[in-house]
Amino acid sequence: MKRLLRVLSVACIAAAPMLLPATAAAQFAKPEDAVKYRQSALTVMSSHFGRIAPVVRGQQPYDAAQVKADVAIVAMMSKLPWSAFGPGTEGGGAKPAVWSDNARFKQGQERLHGDIDKLVAAADTGDLAQVRTAYGAVAASCKACHDNFRNR
Amino acid sequence: MKRLLRVLSVACIAAAPMLLPATAAAQFAKPEDAVKYRQSALTVMSSHFGRIAPVVRGQQPYDAAQVKADVAIVAMMSKLPWSAFGPGTEGGGAKPAVWSDNARFKQGQERLHGDIDKLVAAADTGDLAQVRTAYGAVAASCKACHDNFRNR
Repeated sequence: MKRLLRVLSVACIAAAPMLLPATAAAQFAKPEDAVKYRQSALTVMSSHFGRIAPVVRGQQPYDAAQVKADVAIVAMMSKLPWSAFGPGTEGGGAKPAVWSDNARFKQGQERLHGDIDKLVAAADTGDLAQVRTAYGAVAASCKACHDNFRNR
Repeated sequence: MKRLLRVLSVACIAAAPMLLPATAAAQFAKPEDAVKYRQSALTVMSSHFGRIAPVVRGQQPYDAAQVKADVAIVAMMSKLPWSAFGPGTEGGGAKPAVWSDNARFKQGQERLHGDIDKLVAAADTGDLAQVRTAYGAVAASCKACHDNFRNR
């Protein structure tokens, strides 16, 4: 057991922490690990957010429990990517503005979190009209940030 | 933090019903989307599981709330990848045995879920010794499945 844990953790505490700030260094052994991690969290977020789209468009019946489950995954994923945009992790589809205009990037995260809080609350009500409104606000929040900070 | 944990627990309880194979086709427009999705969920799971490794090895102090948060992310992610291994999504590092010996692959998922349930319970106790034991069981479960179903 101990040996297995040692083998597993070697991979997690590997080289090159100097390129990253202290907290990020503990989380990511290499800059490319940070890029892969943030892209992965955003991929999962996008997938579950996208599953709600046909529902709010009226193309699929509204299954409140299903939407709530997807929203919960979106909410969790929305907390994760930002710690992986530390200094030395440039690239991976992110525009240089992430680092050169970091205050604005952080404002975008705060806006997203506020909008997602409202989507969580809307999904809790089980009222499709409320979900639709809150969904649109999150979608606009995603788009604003992508326009400013993501390469096409 | 309370809000995050609440969101996490709701999702963990609610995520299971949507992972039926019948819905898989509707979730992914293309096979490569399924591959990217499952790899992303596994990447996020692996990252947060790995963050606990130095704690159970005694190389980092035990922050019970942090471990609980990481375990909650591991638990949520552990529900997601399997619906994305449907027919026609071969490849992406997965061995053909995922499809040719699918019953065994599903047994591996069940074992993982059982072991992660125990890790969640252990993290709730705030007792590092219990976390260490449960962590080792999950690590062994990961390894067994990787040995059989993932290309190196």
